[in-house]
Amino acid sequence: MTSQVLHSDHFAQMDTRFRVNFFNSVMGFKGAVLVGTQSAKGFDNLSVFSSLFHMGSKPALFGMLFRPAGEVPRHTLSNIEETGFYTLNNILATFAREAHQTSAKYAKDVSEFEACGFEKEYLADFQAPFVKQSNIRLGMKWLETIPIKHNNTALVVGEVVLADVCSDFVLEDGMVDIEKAGTLTVSGLDRYHTTQEIGRFPYARP
Amino acid sequence: MTSQVLHSDHFAQMDTRFRVNFFNSVMGFKGAVLVGTQSAKGFDNLSVFSSLFHMGSKPALFGMLFRPAGEVPRHTLSNIEETGFYTLNNILATFAREAHQTSAKYAKDVSEFEACGFEKEYLADFQAPFVKQSNIRLGMKWLETIPIKHNNTALVVGEVVLADVCSDFVLEDGMVDIEKAGTLTVSGLDRYHTTQEIGRFPYARP
Repeated sequence: MTSQVLHSDHFAQMDTRFRVNFFNSVMGFKGAVLVGTQSAKGFDNLSVFSSLFHMGSKPALFGMLFRPAGEVPRHTLSNIEETGFYTLNNILATFAREAHQTSAKYAKDVSEFEACGFEKEYLADFQAPFVKQSNIRLGMKWLETIPIKHNNTALVVGEVVLADVCSDFVLEDGMVDIEKAGTLTVSGLDRYHTTQEIGRFPYARP
Repeated sequence: MTSQVLHSDHFAQMDTRFRVNFFNSVMGFKGAVLVGTQSAKGFDNLSVFSSLFHMGSKPALFGMLFRPAGEVPRHTLSNIEETGFYTLNNILATFAREAHQTSAKYAKDVSEFEACGFEKEYLADFQAPFVKQSNIRLGMKWLETIPIKHNNTALVVGEVVLADVCSDFVLEDGMVDIEKAGTLTVSGLDRYHTTQEIGRFPYARP
């Protein structure tokens, strides 16, 4: 196989679409979640994101990166900042296509729950809508939005305040068996994958 | 299946190990990479990370989160800040166990390349060591470390300045076929998985 070493000069010459696909996929698989929000005026929003990452367990924090203002409408981000709450819902193979469809640019007063075929569910008193079809769901409280100066993206930091997980998926040591749950992983912007465990390795010591 | 809704009070009562496993795995799969660095004094370091995330394509940026100072030695972070450069190397099933072993707390003057059985490689004039066994590798330039006040973690923002990818893995539209390359994904702290594509979906329109 031919290995090719590319440098910054090559990146600059890449066609925009090619570059976006390349860097979104090159360094590995990503989690994919449906983010549910509601605007201050009461409009629902549901959108797929692949930029979620774990930030800590005590408190339980997740980060999520949003594209620059102006490039795209950021309904999810404005809803999070207006209301302070959002939901994270896992994506299963049975509704991967519908989940991907939520990335379309719907108008702000259109609910992607309805437009893409998802059933909305409210849990306890939580102020944002969950996806009924998902089997792992978190209720998040917005803590902060950190501006990233290098490319005008915005990093949202949120704390888990609610977790809805079937107890069948929670192993004795706390690990959630997301493969058994059927959670998908994503590569690039549009490619979805199931997984096959190769093993767990013990806590490493020198 | 019994679904259980847990709240912040439940999280506080979880045993530490249980909570760490739970929140590291609950919301989805993560990318896993081996990060290669060199200290100012010339000591090599290689360590597995699952906190890498894509931040943008022009410039090509990746973020990586580091645990709080004091909790663990942060050789990788101090090397990045000392020299300004680091490498990202994908993880294949053939060396997943060795990759996981790099998470052990080796002393700063021990090279995990040698201790865990990896061959070191230098590409062009790049000032940090690559993993020879990996088939997708990026050379990164450190831009900034952003402190996260909520839990004292540190977010490193870096720019891709070099990419070494077999051309066989690069599809016509720029997407890198990381499944064909054999890149693994990880869940929680210690569980590695291969993937099986279910499909690519077209750019979504309302």
